[in-house]
Amino acid sequence: MQEVDIIISGGRVLTSDKKDSIIHTGSIAIDGDTIVGIGRSKEIETRFSGRRTIDAHDCLVMPGLINSHTHAAMTCFRGLADDMELMDWLNNYIFPAEARNVDPELACWGSMLACAEMIKSGTTTFCDMYLFEDETAQVAHQAGMRCLLGEGLFDFPSPNAKTPKEGLAYTRMLIEKWADDPLVNIMVEPHSLYTCSPQLIKDAKALANQYNVPFATHFLENKMEAKQLKEKFGKRATAFLRDIGCLDERFFAFHGVCMDEEDIKIFADHGCKVVHNPESNMKLASGVAPISSMLEHGITVGLGTDGCASNNNLDMFGEMGTAAKLEKTEMLDPTVMSAKTVTRMATRNGARVLGMGDITGSLKTGMKADIIIIDLNKPHLTPMYDEYSHIVYAAGGSDVETVIINGRIVMENRRLLTINEDEAMERVRKIAERIKGSLET
Amino acid sequence: MQEVDIIISGGRVLTSDKKDSIIHTGSIAIDGDTIVGIGRSKEIETRFSGRRTIDAHDCLVMPGLINSHTHAAMTCFRGLADDMELMDWLNNYIFPAEARNVDPELACWGSMLACAEMIKSGTTTFCDMYLFEDETAQVAHQAGMRCLLGEGLFDFPSPNAKTPKEGLAYTRMLIEKWADDPLVNIMVEPHSLYTCSPQLIKDAKALANQYNVPFATHFLENKMEAKQLKEKFGKRATAFLRDIGCLDERFFAFHGVCMDEEDIKIFADHGCKVVHNPESNMKLASGVAPISSMLEHGITVGLGTDGCASNNNLDMFGEMGTAAKLEKTEMLDPTVMSAKTVTRMATRNGARVLGMGDITGSLKTGMKADIIIIDLNKPHLTPMYDEYSHIVYAAGGSDVETVIINGRIVMENRRLLTINEDEAMERVRKIAERIKGSLET
Repeated sequence: MQEVDIIISGGRVLTSDKKDSIIHTGSIAIDGDTIVGIGRSKEIETRFSGRRTIDAHDCLVMPGLINSHTHAAMTCFRGLADDMELMDWLNNYIFPAEARNVDPELACWGSMLACAEMIKSGTTTFCDMYLFEDETAQVAHQAGMRCLLGEGLFDFPSPNAKTPKEGLAYTRMLIEKWADDPLVNIMVEPHSLYTCSPQLIKDAKALANQYNVPFATHFLENKMEAKQLKEKFGKRATAFLRDIGCLDERFFAFHGVCMDEEDIKIFADHGCKVVHNPESNMKLASGVAPISSMLEHGITVGLGTDGCASNNNLDMFGEMGTAAKLEKTEMLDPTVMSAKTVTRMATRNGARVLGMGDITGSLKTGMKADIIIIDLNKPHLTPMYDEYSHIVYAAGGSDVETVIINGRIVMENRRLLTINEDEAMERVRKIAERIKGSLET
Repeated sequence: MQEVDIIISGGRVLTSDKKDSIIHTGSIAIDGDTIVGIGRSKEIETRFSGRRTIDAHDCLVMPGLINSHTHAAMTCFRGLADDMELMDWLNNYIFPAEARNVDPELACWGSMLACAEMIKSGTTTFCDMYLFEDETAQVAHQAGMRCLLGEGLFDFPSPNAKTPKEGLAYTRMLIEKWADDPLVNIMVEPHSLYTCSPQLIKDAKALANQYNVPFATHFLENKMEAKQLKEKFGKRATAFLRDIGCLDERFFAFHGVCMDEEDIKIFADHGCKVVHNPESNMKLASGVAPISSMLEHGITVGLGTDGCASNNNLDMFGEMGTAAKLEKTEMLDPTVMSAKTVTRMATRNGARVLGMGDITGSLKTGMKADIIIIDLNKPHLTPMYDEYSHIVYAAGGSDVETVIINGRIVMENRRLLTINEDEAMERVRKIAERIKGSLET
């Protein structure tokens, strides 16, 4: 009998593996950062003994969720301005609030609060784009969250980079600094094609190629952007990206709301991926991304919450429910975007979008132990006919009891073990006072 | 100094009154079932002393939510079948499962589980249509929930009524039995125009008129129904209802997805109301109700979850978020359906739809004490710039800590005081086994 660090014992295990296997009374053996055994409880518990056992009876055990697009530090702007025209919202609230307030302190505590919220709602991996991402990296490292981070790159000065060159240099610094971290991964993220020159896009891609890291950007988020880019490039934005050599298997696009059939074909041909952000797209009235068509073309689609200013929370359970329901409404077809399809987007396929499909997003031997445990013994999760149905249509982030990332328990019975959440809330409240003041003057 | 039963002390009080007043540090004095004082804490607490004080610092205090359309007992079918064509779903799952299983036991325990879930997510009043509604009435009475209930009436036999006449007689019995109950109110509810003959609709309306109770039905939920009704009546369904004298201030329609401009005008002219059920409409791919137009025409619109088979939970916070975001997407306008508008739909206007606008749905002196207290000290509710924004875009039902209905504390620190939730879950699990078995044979 092999002694291991942790045994999760007796849960309903939803593996999100290629066969979408579900083990009705299953156990998982974790040693170090890795799943070393998974299967029926009887079998696992004759092969392994745990130095520590987590009882998962009446619980659903599943892969930690992958939030494939967010701006973590924007928790500081949650609810600052809603229900506005995009340009009013951006130009009169978000941009000035950012220009006057974003600094390492905001990036640090905004990210800390985001990590607290994400862990408490079952997210174990997040993909982030913002400013001062080294702060976010340090916070994620401390919180024990897996992540893929990139500094937002722009043509114009940002609070962290006076020039595009500085932004690229900062990104290079991040890549080298965090190269050997078990949890923090760095990527290259030009903000968008409408805020970056073709030259900046090319330089950014060259940097990504040099280090063999992923590359992603906001892309065709609404009609105005689509129109603007067509005028700017004299051809479809997808063709522009293809023609400068940006489209490959390490490229992914956030939003993709206005991608048409031709864009989708080009993406599929080049193995590019997409991150769907339904709640943000709805709240900003951007439109509905053609996810069914993307899936039909074999594009791997992940799911993200976007930042807190346009959602306004980081709960991937809510996002899953919305993703399923929105597509049914849009297609007037209740059979599209099944609960299983959406669960995959938030687990295995999200991990594949981020280039982490071999280490997280599903539960099998050899994968890193990124696992969440959901308490099913609640009125709104009773009765239980189908696990996927409950995950997508009934559960919420607050049903997550325990979270393990890379083999480490980061939340137990809803108590965070790696983050002082009271301190994070207090710090962000003070930053919010400063933000409010900065907009009143 | 007047001694009262309860003082809720020191919360942010969102009154949902006509002025949408918010009291930043407010207190509420409750005596018996009624709010006897509400205002700034300093003022209230010099006028009233409480035999009991609830500390609401760091909390949002607001009216209990009004779920204006549900089928409570259908918790038993939660997640039984999803992601299906409507007719496949109804004919091969829901209808046979109902025909074989709905009985007083299912109605009782399904409703009990629903009441547990509704209280735990901040709903204090619900409007229900199902079978064996006397069971639901007894459960609501025991749980201490305010409600407006009606037996679903059909042309064909239901498990509780062999004929339309029996259904009407049962409804009459309910009206008389519950006439003096402080919480349980009865209405008349023909299921729909496609399951009821014109004669049944007329008889039902006559019954409602005789007792001066509300009258409501499923109405124009999807395109197929709209087409079918046009063929059946040779005119628009709204005109049919008007011409037989059904449309008045005590009429309200569930769904109204396919109402057009002319229908909306007729409703507005007659003071009829509508209940919006966005999550169910999305999940069943029914379409999007023209809520902006209804509001422009001055129609009072409430919000409902519909039953658990098509949602799949009873969380009105999720429903509010979806209502706001769906309308913005549909209209491609982020300014429509603001957080405040949606909050009103789930509180004051919901109460007005149910004919209870003078007793619940807002917090002011003389109203019944239907109050929920939300703990704001959580990562996903930090920071706080705007109360409505958090209610609609960030909070979830699980953020509700304490619930008071008709002056009685029914949940305290998330512990239900009037329902044995473990027993309700256990009973529903057993009923679900029976349902599963009935579909396998």
